Parts: sequence; C-alpha cells; structure tokens
Amino acid sequence: MSLSVDPMVLKLARKKLEEFLEEDAWVGDITSQVLDISGKQEAVIYAKSEGVLAGTTFVKEIFKMLDPESYVIERLREGEEFSRGEELLVVVSEVKALLTGERLSLNLLQRLSGIAHFTRRFVKILEGTKIQLLDTRKTTPGFRLFEKYAVRVGGGRNHRIGLFDGIIIKDNHIKAAGGIRKAVEMARMKANPLLKIEVETTNLEEVEEAVESGADMIMLDNMSKDQMVKAIEIIRKYDKNIKIEASGNINEEKLKEIRDLDLDFVSSGAIIHSSPWCDLSKELRVVPAAPEF
Amino acid sequence: MSLSVDPMVLKLARKKLEEFLEEDAWVGDITSQVLDISGKQEAVIYAKSEGVLAGTTFVKEIFKMLDPESYVIERLREGEEFSRGEELLVVVSEVKALLTGERLSLNLLQRLSGIAHFTRRFVKILEGTKIQLLDTRKTTPGFRLFEKYAVRVGGGRNHRIGLFDGIIIKDNHIKAAGGIRKAVEMARMKANPLLKIEVETTNLEEVEEAVESGADMIMLDNMSKDQMVKAIEIIRKYDKNIKIEASGNINEEKLKEIRDLDLDFVSSGAIIHSSPWCDLSKELRVVPAAPEF
Amino acid sequence: MSLSVDPMVLKLARKKLEEFLEEDAWVGDITSQVLDISGKQEAVIYAKSEGVLAGTTFVKEIFKMLDPESYVIERLREGEEFSRGEELLVVVSEVKALLTGERLSLNLLQRLSGIAHFTRRFVKILEGTKIQLLDTRKTTPGFRLFEKYAVRVGGGRNHRIGLFDGIIIKDNHIKAAGGIRKAVEMARMKANPLLKIEVETTNLEEVEEAVESGADMIMLDNMSKDQMVKAIEIIRKYDKNIKIEASGNINEEKLKEIRDLDLDFVSSGAIIHSSPWCDLSKELRVVPAAPEF
Amino acid sequence: MSLSVDPMVLKLARKKLEEFLEEDAWVGDITSQVLDISGKQEAVIYAKSEGVLAGTTFVKEIFKMLDPESYVIERLREGEEFSRGEELLVVVSEVKALLTGERLSLNLLQRLSGIAHFTRRFVKILEGTKIQLLDTRKTTPGFRLFEKYAVRVGGGRNHRIGLFDGIIIKDNHIKAAGGIRKAVEMARMKANPLLKIEVETTNLEEVEEAVESGADMIMLDNMSKDQMVKAIEIIRKYDKNIKIEASGNINEEKLKEIRDLDLDFVSSGAIIHSSPWCDLSKELRVVPAAPEF
Amino acid sequence: MSLSVDPMVLKLARKKLEEFLEEDAWVGDITSQVLDISGKQEAVIYAKSEGVLAGTTFVKEIFKMLDPESYVIERLREGEEFSRGEELLVVVSEVKALLTGERLSLNLLQRLSGIAHFTRRFVKILEGTKIQLLDTRKTTPGFRLFEKYAVRVGGGRNHRIGLFDGIIIKDNHIKAAGGIRKAVEMARMKANPLLKIEVETTNLEEVEEAVESGADMIMLDNMSKDQMVKAIEIIRKYDKNIKIEASGNINEEKLKEIRDLDLDFVSSGAIIHSSPWCDLSKELRVVPAAPEF
Amino acid sequence: MSLSVDPMVLKLARKKLEEFLEEDAWVGDITSQVLDISGKQEAVIYAKSEGVLAGTTFVKEIFKMLDPESYVIERLREGEEFSRGEELLVVVSEVKALLTGERLSLNLLQRLSGIAHFTRRFVKILEGTKIQLLDTRKTTPGFRLFEKYAVRVGGGRNHRIGLFDGIIIKDNHIKAAGGIRKAVEMARMKANPLLKIEVETTNLEEVEEAVESGADMIMLDNMSKDQMVKAIEIIRKYDKNIKIEASGNINEEKLKEIRDLDLDFVSSGAIIHSSPWCDLSKELRVVPAAPEF
Repeated sequence: MSLSVDPMVLKLARKKLEEFLEEDAWVGDITSQVLDISGKQEAVIYAKSEGVLAGTTFVKEIFKMLDPESYVIERLREGEEFSRGEELLVVVSEVKALLTGERLSLNLLQRLSGIAHFTRRFVKILEGTKIQLLDTRKTTPGFRLFEKYAVRVGGGRNHRIGLFDGIIIKDNHIKAAGGIRKAVEMARMKANPLLKIEVETTNLEEVEEAVESGADMIMLDNMSKDQMVKAIEIIRKYDKNIKIEASGNINEEKLKEIRDLDLDFVSSGAIIHSSPWCDLSKELRVVPAAPEF
Repeated sequence: MSLSVDPMVLKLARKKLEEFLEEDAWVGDITSQVLDISGKQEAVIYAKSEGVLAGTTFVKEIFKMLDPESYVIERLREGEEFSRGEELLVVVSEVKALLTGERLSLNLLQRLSGIAHFTRRFVKILEGTKIQLLDTRKTTPGFRLFEKYAVRVGGGRNHRIGLFDGIIIKDNHIKAAGGIRKAVEMARMKANPLLKIEVETTNLEEVEEAVESGADMIMLDNMSKDQMVKAIEIIRKYDKNIKIEASGNINEEKLKEIRDLDLDFVSSGAIIHSSPWCDLSKELRVVPAAPEF
Repeated sequence: MSLSVDPMVLKLARKKLEEFLEEDAWVGDITSQVLDISGKQEAVIYAKSEGVLAGTTFVKEIFKMLDPESYVIERLREGEEFSRGEELLVVVSEVKALLTGERLSLNLLQRLSGIAHFTRRFVKILEGTKIQLLDTRKTTPGFRLFEKYAVRVGGGRNHRIGLFDGIIIKDNHIKAAGGIRKAVEMARMKANPLLKIEVETTNLEEVEEAVESGADMIMLDNMSKDQMVKAIEIIRKYDKNIKIEASGNINEEKLKEIRDLDLDFVSSGAIIHSSPWCDLSKELRVVPAAPEF
Repeated sequence: MSLSVDPMVLKLARKKLEEFLEEDAWVGDITSQVLDISGKQEAVIYAKSEGVLAGTTFVKEIFKMLDPESYVIERLREGEEFSRGEELLVVVSEVKALLTGERLSLNLLQRLSGIAHFTRRFVKILEGTKIQLLDTRKTTPGFRLFEKYAVRVGGGRNHRIGLFDGIIIKDNHIKAAGGIRKAVEMARMKANPLLKIEVETTNLEEVEEAVESGADMIMLDNMSKDQMVKAIEIIRKYDKNIKIEASGNINEEKLKEIRDLDLDFVSSGAIIHSSPWCDLSKELRVVPAAPEF
Repeated sequence: MSLSVDPMVLKLARKKLEEFLEEDAWVGDITSQVLDISGKQEAVIYAKSEGVLAGTTFVKEIFKMLDPESYVIERLREGEEFSRGEELLVVVSEVKALLTGERLSLNLLQRLSGIAHFTRRFVKILEGTKIQLLDTRKTTPGFRLFEKYAVRVGGGRNHRIGLFDGIIIKDNHIKAAGGIRKAVEMARMKANPLLKIEVETTNLEEVEEAVESGADMIMLDNMSKDQMVKAIEIIRKYDKNIKIEASGNINEEKLKEIRDLDLDFVSSGAIIHSSPWCDLSKELRVVPAAPEF
Repeated sequence: MSLSVDPMVLKLARKKLEEFLEEDAWVGDITSQVLDISGKQEAVIYAKSEGVLAGTTFVKEIFKMLDPESYVIERLREGEEFSRGEELLVVVSEVKALLTGERLSLNLLQRLSGIAHFTRRFVKILEGTKIQLLDTRKTTPGFRLFEKYAVRVGGGRNHRIGLFDGIIIKDNHIKAAGGIRKAVEMARMKANPLLKIEVETTNLEEVEEAVESGADMIMLDNMSKDQMVKAIEIIRKYDKNIKIEASGNINEEKLKEIRDLDLDFVSSGAIIHSSPWCDLSKELRVVPAAPEF
C-alpha cells in the first residue's frame, strides 16, 4: 500500500527532501566538517515513546542524497506499531552523511509516526462500521504530501489533495456565488466532468437545498449528533447515492458518539494538526576515525 | 523587532509561500473557477480560541501574490494577545484570490499564532530571571523559517538556524571524533573563528571534560535539577565566561523547577513541536457577483 | 469566462512564458542588440487568414516581461471571430522588446487562435443538442495549459487536466488490474472520494461490465454509430445517472453522424492536435531611431 | 547523426521531459495508484498510420525517470520509415511507470514522427538539387528543441536555433534601424564576428540594397518564381559567395516549382507547424498483478 | 551602447544577482538584523584607485531587489574614467538593504571597473589602426555575462559568448575530426548556415590548409610577429574576405609589436583574467536610528 | 582535509557546475556537434606555469555530468606543487564530453590553482608564528564557494562564509547603530548565542571602546605596524581571551613586517582577488573518429 511505489510522488518527495536538507544543513554540518572523520558507520534509530512507524521510505532517500552508497535496514515495516525502547531502523552510511542527515530524518520520522499513531486511534474507533476516516487540508504548509502519506500509513483515507482535484462548495463559495443552487449548477455545467460536487452545509435548510441542487456528496459541518440524524434522514430519503461526510472539530469523543450513524465518511483535521510527535533518538555506533593526512 | 524588515528573510519567505500556494492550489481553486465571480471583496479573519497573533506579515505576501492590489487591515499587531471572538485582520482582494489563499493563510496563522502563544507561556515563567528561552532544530521540515519567526514573536530567542551557523558538539560528534577534547581542539583550529564552541553534556564527567577542553558554552542535556546544580558549580568555578544552557524535555513544570538556577539559557523543542494550533476562521463579506457575459 | 482571471493559472502561465522567451531569445535578439535603437514604438498584429482570436492574455504578459511599461490595445476580444486583413491588437512598447517578443507572441497567437477556430467548428455542429464537446490529453508536451485554454475560448469544455484530477480506467489499467470490476472496486475504496470513476469501453461486453461495476461515467471508444446506439441503450436502462462519452477519431463527419444520439459528451483530440495554425503577421510602426552616443 | 549524443542537448531535453511529466502526471496517475499493481511488465508501441520514427531517444529518458531500471527495445531506428501495423518499440518497466509515462511518450512520438515524416516528403522533392531544406522559428512555444530534432531526423537542416545564434535583419529591424545599409553596417561593426549577416528582402530593390550593403546571405521572402529568378541573377552577378535562401509559405507545390532555381536554401515553417501527427498506440502485455498485503 | 537596454540580458543578470545575494547574505546580514535600525539612508561609493566605471546598471538592480524603493544617483556614467578620491555613485535605500548589499555591490564594481580599465589600455594601443580588440572565453565560471559587459564598457568587442554561437575549429577539434579540411567540410554542410567557420592555426602549414578548406576566419595562435607576417600574406593572397585574428598570450608589449600588421582582430584573455581589481569603498551617511518598539 | 568529502558542499558545487556548463555550452559545442565523432578518448591537462593544484574534485564532477562513465586519473593530488611542463591529470571520457567540458575545466583549475599558489606564499611567510591566515568576503560574485576552497587547499583558513554565519560589526554598522557599545550590546542580547562578536576598529579609541564593550574578537583595520603594537597592548592587557585580527591591504611586504606581532589572525582579500591565474593547457590524445552511418 506504500506511497513509495508511485513514481511521481517519489519525484515530488525528493525535491522536497532536497529543500529540507538545505534548510537545515545549507553549506554543511560545520561541526562534523572540522572533525576530519570519514568511513562507513552505522546509526540506529530507536523509540523513546510508543507509536506507529511512518517515514522510512523518505529516510532512505535522505541518506541516498548524502551518500549514494548508504542503505537502511528496517527493523519494523511502515505501519507497524512500536513501543518504547524498540529499534526501528539502522542507517549504514558515510559518517558525515549520518551526522548531516540526523536531525532531518528524526524530525520527519517523529512527526509522521505521530500522525500515523494518532490516525490509527481514530480508525480503531470506527472499526466495525462502514464509515471511512478522511483527512482535511488543515496541514502544515509545504509538508502536506508527507502528512497525508502518514494518514494512509495509519489507516486513514485521503480526501482531495488540494483545491485542484475536487470540488467542495464551502460557505464562502456559496456566498460568493449567491446560493447553493447556483453554485452547483455552474459546477455541473463547467467543471471537469470527472469531478463530483460536494456541498458544505451547517444546518438542515442548507442540507435540503444541497440535496435538491443535485449535490453528489454533502458535508455536515459542525453539527450536533441530533442535527446529523435529521440531515441523514433528509438525504437518504431523497437519494441513496449521495455520499455523506461529517466534519468539524472531530475528536475521539465526538467520533465515539457518532460512530453508529449512517455516515459514509468522517473527516478530521486533528489527526494531522493535533497529533503529538513521537519521541525517537539516533545513536551512532562508530569506531573513532583515524585523522586524514 | 519584526522579521519582515530583513530583506533577505523576506525573499526566502516569498519563495516558500509560492511553493505553499502551489501545494494547495496548483492549477487553481477549481471550485471558484467555475463560479464566474469577480470583483474586490473583503474577508475577516477572527479567533475561535485565544492566542498570540503571528504571521500577518506572511498573509499579506500570500494575497499580494494572488492579487497585487490586495491589502490587509490589521486589527491587532503581531505579538498581541487575542481572545475568542476577536477580529484579527481583514483582507481586501479580488474574490477569487480571497478564496484561493484562504486555507493557506489560515493554516499559517493558526500554526504560528499557536507557537507564539505557547512560547509566551514559557517566557512568562522565566520573567524576573536572567535566563533566556531558546528554540531548537526540532521543527517541521521545510517550515523552520516560519516557526522560528513565531518563537521570536512570542518573546523567545532563536538558537542557531541550522547546522551551518553554529558549532554544537553533540554525543554523536563526540563518538565520531573520539572524545570531547579532540573535537573541541579540532573545531578551535579549523572552524570559522567567529563561532563559539558549545559541547553537549549528559553527566558531570563530561561537564568537566568540556570545561577543561575550553568550550565556550555547555549544554546540560536531560539532567535532573540536582545534576544541574552541580554542573553549574563546576563550570562557574572554572570560568565565569562560559555560557550554560539547559536542554532536553523542557516543559512548563521543568521550567518552573529550574528557573532559579544560575543558567544563561534554557532551550525547548516543545515550544514549536508541541504547541497546539490556534483556532481561526475566515468569513467573506461579499456582494453576490453578477455573472460575466 | 476568461482563464486570465484565475490567479494560479496566471502564475503557471507566467513561468511557462519566461521559459518560452528563453527558448527563443536566450541572451537576446542579437540582431536588434547591435542596432542602437531605443524608444517606445507600436506594432500591430493583423490577420492573414480567418480565425477565432485566442491568446491576447498571454501576449500582454510576454511584453510586460520584456518591458514593464508596455501595454496592449485590443481591437478584438478573445473569442471573437476575425477575417483576413483585420487588425487584432496593437502592442506599444520599447522597440527592442517589440522585436524580441515578436516571434513568440505570433507563434502563440497563431497556434491558439487556430485551436479556438477549429474547436468552434466542432461546437457549432453540436448546437441544438445537449452534447458537450470535451478535449483530451493528446496535447503538445509542455503546452497543454495553453491549448486547453484555447479550447475553452473556442467554446469547448475541458476534460481532466492530467492524470491527477480524474479517474479513467483505460484498457491498459484494466489489463493491469485484472478486469473492469476489480479496478472499479479498488478505485471506489481508495481514491479521493470526490472523484467519479469513468471506464473506457470498446465493445458491448465491456459496457455491460462497466455498468454493473458501478462506473459513474462510461467512454465509448472508437465505436461505430450502431454500436453506440446499443451501448447507450444498455447504459440508460441500467442507470439514468451514468454519464456517456463518445471518443476516438472524432472528426467533423463523425460528429455530424452522431450528434442526434443520447450522449452527454463527445471528446476529441483533433480539436487540438489537428487544428491548423492561423496566419498572422506583425508590423512595426516605427520612427527611425536616432543613434545613441 | 543522432541528437542524443550531444551531452548538453540531452541535459536540456531531460529538464524539459521532467516538466512534461509534471504537466501530465503531477501527483501521479491516480488511476493506477489505487490499483495495487506492481512488477515489471512490457508495453509495445505500434503504428496505426505510416510515418518516420523520431523520438525514441526521449522515450527512453521518460521511462528512465519513472523507473531507473526500465529499458527500451527498438524495433526500428530513428529515421526509419514505418507503415500501419508495425511495432516500433517495446518498453520494459515497472507497470506503474508504464501507465504514468504512456500518454507523454505517445504524444511525443506522434508529434515528432509526424514532423520527420512531413520533412522527408519535402526533402525528397529537393533530391538531385544542391538546395538544402531549412526549418524556421515558427515552432510550438517550449517544444522547439524537439521539433528541430525531428526535422534533422527527417533529413532537413536546422536554421538558427533562436534569436541568439544568428543575425537576420528582417523587415521590422530594417524599419527600426532606418534602412538596410545602416543595419548591415552596425551589425558588421558590433556583432560577434563569427556571425554572418542575412538580410530579408521582399522585392528587387531590397535585394539590390542588401547586395550592396555586403550581406553574407539574402532571404527572398514570399517572392514569385519570376521575382526569384531576377533576384538570383542580381545576387550572383554581384558576388558568387552570397548565400541565397527562399522563404515564405513554402509548401510542396511551391517547392516543386522552384526546385530548379539556383538557390542554396529553402526554409519552411510548414514542415513543423503543418505536419500531421502520426497515429500510434501503446498496448500493455501484462500478467494480472497479485494484490499487495 | 549599454547592455542594460537589452531586455533578455537584464533578465539573465537579475537571476544571477539573486544568486550572488544568496551566496553572501543567505538568511540575512545577521549583524544588521540585531541592530533594530530602519529608515531610508544614503551611502556613497568612492574610488581609492583610478579606473573606468563599469557595473552601475547591476548595482541598481541589487538594491532594487533588497528595497524596491531604493534608487541610485550616478556621479559618473559607465565608461567614464575616474581617479582616486572621486565619488562614483550614491545609493539611497532602507538602511538594512544598504548594509546587506554592500559587499556584493563593491565586489561587482571593483571587478568590472578593473576589467573596463584594463581593456581600455589595450584599446588605446590599437587606436589609429583598423584592428578591433576581442575578448575570449577565459572568464570566471558563472560570471562571464558581467565580464564581457565590462569589456564592452572598456571599448572592446565581444567574441562569441560561448560554444553555442560560433564555430571555431580548435586544435582538439581538428585532432578529433582527423584534419582541418574534413572538419571545415562537415561544418559547412551541417551547421547553422548563419555561422562563419573559424580555424585555429599555429603554423604556416595549417594556415594554408585552413585557407584552402574555405575557412571564413583564421586565428593565428601564439605566433611570432614574423610568422604572423607570413601567415597574413598567405591568407590575403588567397582571399581578401577572410578575416584574420591574432591570439595567444597577448599583453600590452605584444600588442604594441603587432599593431601595424594587416590584422582584423586581436583577441586577449588577459583583459579579463589578468585585470587588477579597482579599489572602491562605501560609506554610509546615516542618522543613528531610533530603536523600534 | 578535502572539501569534497562534505556531502552538502558537494551538492552546492554540483548545482553551480551545472550553471557554469550552461553558461559556456548552452545548446552544446556546435563545433563538435557537426563533426560526427564519438567514442572514449583521453585528454591530458598539463602545466605551462608553476602552481599549486586545486580543483580536481570539481573537474571530476564536470565530466561526470557530461558523461557518467568518464573518470579522471590524478597525476598529482590537490595541494601539491607543480612546475612548468608537468602533467596534472588525465580525463578519460566520450570525446564530445571532452571537448564540451574543456574550457570550463581549464578556467576552473587555472583560477583555483592560482589562488592556492598565491595563498601558500602568504602562508609560508607566517610559518613559525602562531598567526593564522584568513580569507575575506572580497570574492568573485557567484564563485566564493570555489575560491574559499582554494584558500584551504593553499593552507589558509576560511573566515566566515557570508553575512549569515558570523557577526562583524563594521564601520557602517557602527554608524547605523550609533556607536560600538550599543551595537555590541544589541548583538549580545539578540543574536544566535553561538556567535562571537567581532568589532572592526581603525584607531586606538575604537580599540578601547571595543574592548570595553565586551567584543570577543577585534579587527585592526588598515593600521600601521606601530598602531597595531599599541592596539595589541591595549587588548591583551584587558583580556587575554580576545582574539586579534589584522586586516586591510595585506600584501607580502606587509605580512613580513607584522609577522612577529602578537596577532591571532591576519586576513587578506588579495589571496583571492589578486592571485594570478596559473597557465594550463589540455591536449586530446585521439584516434580519428570513424564517421557515423
């Protein structure tokens, strides 16, 4: 299921990783530059907290960029759960590359494994229902590709990637267009015909308007459980093919509360923006380097 | 003290913001593209939680990129605290630009204001002492420039920006070099002479070795308060000019515990990676657009 | 309905136009460099064949890049038909900019106006029916953004922009996945839920399989009119909401033949790749420049 | 004679091909992404029309970018003629790479083989004369490098690549400079001394002026055969070393008409902009992929 | 005659200048960043040695990049000679921009004015002859555009810009091709027909072979005056239209020695690579800034 | 000690080398393009003047870019001295790559070996003292990375790389800030705490002010030997830990004069900007190529 197999995603990720390296290391790790060290060494990355491993794919790329002959030994596969003290992976590489790529690889793994871990908790709450967990566009600027990857590793499903691959008519679009009906109609007439049309609604009037406008998918935004029940009833009565998504401040409590409703999707920004970082560390296993002459 | 006045930082930020826009909006907000709307409108960004405003500088740039004639009216200045319900800023711009830049500007403000808010809580704990709060390199890949900006807005001080503008001899450098003394000596002999040499220590033996090696600054990493007291004594006795930094899992409790020690700096990764996002929202104030012919 | 109003599309177009200028003019038009000419002049672009004007938006950008104080006077608006001899637009700019941007602006206008012209002929054939004309991904590498723009100017509607904003399960996907049913199922389960699923079919068995698999849209590829009639019957009987697209070697004859069928869309690669260039020319109206000293 | 052997051209082409891939596939072929397929497969590209093969060099690069271990088996070499039904090349690659690079490689081959085919028809008309066929700068923006390559594959010769590697004093330059004589003189005095000076002429007066100004090469633009005969007489009488180029709406009829004149070059924009695309297709030969676990 | 008027050259120069700024100032002048200074100030650049002013065009761009509202007052025009103590230009700009752009603008002016100064000395030696002074491709990597500009400011003429806009068959080309005759023939048959063919020769046999092969221009490389005399005789006798260039370790002495020969060009690498930097300095005229609050 | 071992520096260098190749060779060496030559050949680079070899690391990269299977045989190691006539290195590569990369590799080696050679002369003067030779930021725009590398090869030590990795409060900073004391204080309070603070002084009053302000390092700029003696006395009396750097028009004479002073560093711009190019040449050893069919 790995993202790494799509060749275009890997190309995009590599460009980003190059930038991340420049951000941290620009003209190099000046500390290791002065040390006159060289030679292949290995470093182990291990857990100081529990989590779900995500990001090894990218760590491999980071060290390949710094040392084309480096390689990574995976103790766990991405998506596997780990507990405190466990070894996750071992990097074998030129020692300067190990030191230069250390912080970036840890930051990446800690962040992504944290998201995968948090996502999995949400996914487990939905187990046994037909509801699928979606992410949102509330992501860290510049880092979405990776954060959405971690959601998938955690067991969630990705919503649209950006503004360009899905139509969601939100409150501000509705205002700008002058109503739901008008907005849906225009989208129906002019958009790429492979796109469904989703409408964001916050009350039952809007739900009815969306349904009648021919929306393919309806988002129930920030509604109480009671409101959702009524909204679902309206929608299902009208057309069984319309997909229903609950959204807005979805946390674990809320999720437990609504897991038995007739929803297709629940989307949560929190699985990305509120997931705590895992705590990981990296330890070199080095033989002291002989000075260069 | 604003970052925005440094011309090079602004240049770097603009490049990043261009990328962030591409990430979210690539070939455009296809939802607003089909709506046949145009004309200058305004949108207000207001708070749904409390926080410390950070990021307006960048929001201005985002909308300038989308509409060179857009402008922002600041209700609060960066660094000011806000509470739930307050209006933070108003963007006046071409309506498609307002819709296209919406998510990015919110993601940015929510993340940065969250960091500034969390940093300020730490800074307040240190008030009345000589200790300064520093950040670390535990930042979201690709977003450090902005996260470190938010720390400054919150009242913190930046540690080195990356591996290239400061020498910290860490555990793995020490192992690779074959000891603290050797590493410090090499740095003294070969590094850019404008750089101080900091050594990371985890116990009193290392503190003594660092002191005797001539380190300019010593980091006490993950030590208990008792250990810190002894380490400080060793250092101050040897040379009053050596700067002392406490680091490692610094949270608010720990900070309160050690605020009365004779430290120069406390550094915390948590002020960035564990700060909760502020909750902000954006509302268009639009006149329904007339269809184009 | 102009593309030029979407801010992200304009940003992408500008990057491309910069590259196009470099391709033709790299270190400059060395012929005009040696001439010691300067000063504001005007040049008129006029038609030597008939066509539908498309591309003025980009010509403005080209000259703005070469001379920020240049401007364009539009004799016709984009989308208007012109005949031989008509003046289309006048560029007022620094004379070296006029000479440097000449070939690129003509190449662009000739190609885009040719596409718009050819597209309109197809669109006119469909007038009075509910069928909409779509383009395809058979475009000149690197120039798709512009070619799809010209289709819209000509009155056509864009299909998906690329592989990333629409799911079409084509013959090779079906083979790779091991059948239509399996492919549709996987897409239903894992893709961005805002995307419809279209299946390409070449015979009635595939049409039935696609229909039963739950495809949202079905492409009838390279079928005879008779086959189409039967395919449409199968599909409409099963589910009235399924969209039907005819495709494959659609030329004007074929279009006339099938215009009375119960189709939703006809897609044609020819409107882009087989449209003849319009013939345009550019004439300077200059006052001989005084030599510089 | 292959373009592929020049290392700088290959570098430029690779950059372009990366962009072309991004244009079509951006965040990936989402259809194949959801299919859980993997493993090496092969695809054959075969002809559905006749043509002259051009572009294999670039197709290899496209698949190398998507899968470094891919390779291409050439059934025909570039420059060879093919007829309907013939296999042109086989690509062996990871299946997702095969699907992702399919449209781009076909678009490229269809366009380039079309140009090579059309060019060869023109070249054949000139066989047995000393006249060489040149291309022009009337090319698709951003795609010139490839189009000029196809001209060479077809047997044509390239004129200058852009405004930067050749001096042609055209009508608008003459106007701007205040006359042919003045323009030639300035070019003679100031340009890179390795460049010849060509003057575009449209009547016999201009031809005489060009000849007397010392032009190294003279373009007879849009002249009738009769005018050409007289122009050639004027030029040859004056100086046998001056090169003569006929240009302007050169099609096959015109070419046949003037093939017996004492010309050095005929240049044609049509060989690029009016060449019809060849019709090619790509077929996967796949073993159904086992699902990943 | 200024380079600044060609719009493409200015575009290329701006890209380079952006890189130069990043090289020196990356995340900013950290010294001025901490100073809390702001406001418009002025700085004068004055001479501490004599020279010929070159580069003001670029200095303007540097400060525009750092502060769009900055401007430059020119005390001298480019190409004018200055002596020790003279004020050359005044920059008025935001004070941080003045400090950030200082070193780059001085490095640029010192290098370019040095080249212009040295070039002019060579040019003066040739005054009264028909010989023109050319530069070569012996330039600092990445800086050629600017160095060739300075040659023009100093009164020299540019040879080809790179390997792409002129054909010179040099010793290694001749070896690779298997002789002068073969190389010239191939170039005549296949190169862009707007290019002359120059052959590098080091002895009289080669001169004769070049002449007979039909070379348009002949370089006499590293010959003694006596050899040159004979070579010129051979060439002129054969064809008066062949251009003759003397090259190879041309310094002022050599130039004086050969200035009376019947040469068309003398080319010198020394005017660029051996020209001493001018000594310039920049002084701020500032009012102490009030601290920001 | 080689720069080549730092992976980030190598990444930056490669980007630059790509640009340098484009500058010279853009669409290729058109002379070798027409020659129909191919096959592996070798070329030797030998010395026509004495010098200290620097730059082989980069020459390897240049040819790798042009021909991934090329390699370099080093006759001398970087840092070794060579005399006239010696062979320095042999490049084995595809012949077109050899011709295309020739000028760039020579320009690079000649410039860098010249700097290394000149630097070593300065370093030798300081032998037997504790004084270290530093470079400055007076470098060729865009080429600093390479020039500073050559200084290290010659035996010098690098000062800060740019404005971003060291604080030097210079005359203009002092003016802008309103005095040395104020500037030092602000830097102490706000800068990255790993940076020392150096103050530039031009007379004894400034030296005293710098000392009392707590500067970590003091630059004696353009002082006479007598002034230096007094300045050193003031500084050493106050604090033995303050580093002292002499700067300003340091040439070999000046260096001999001050080598016995109690200085820590002498910095010289001349070792870079006034170092003469070494004279090197490259000779192909080729077998005449068979024509391609």
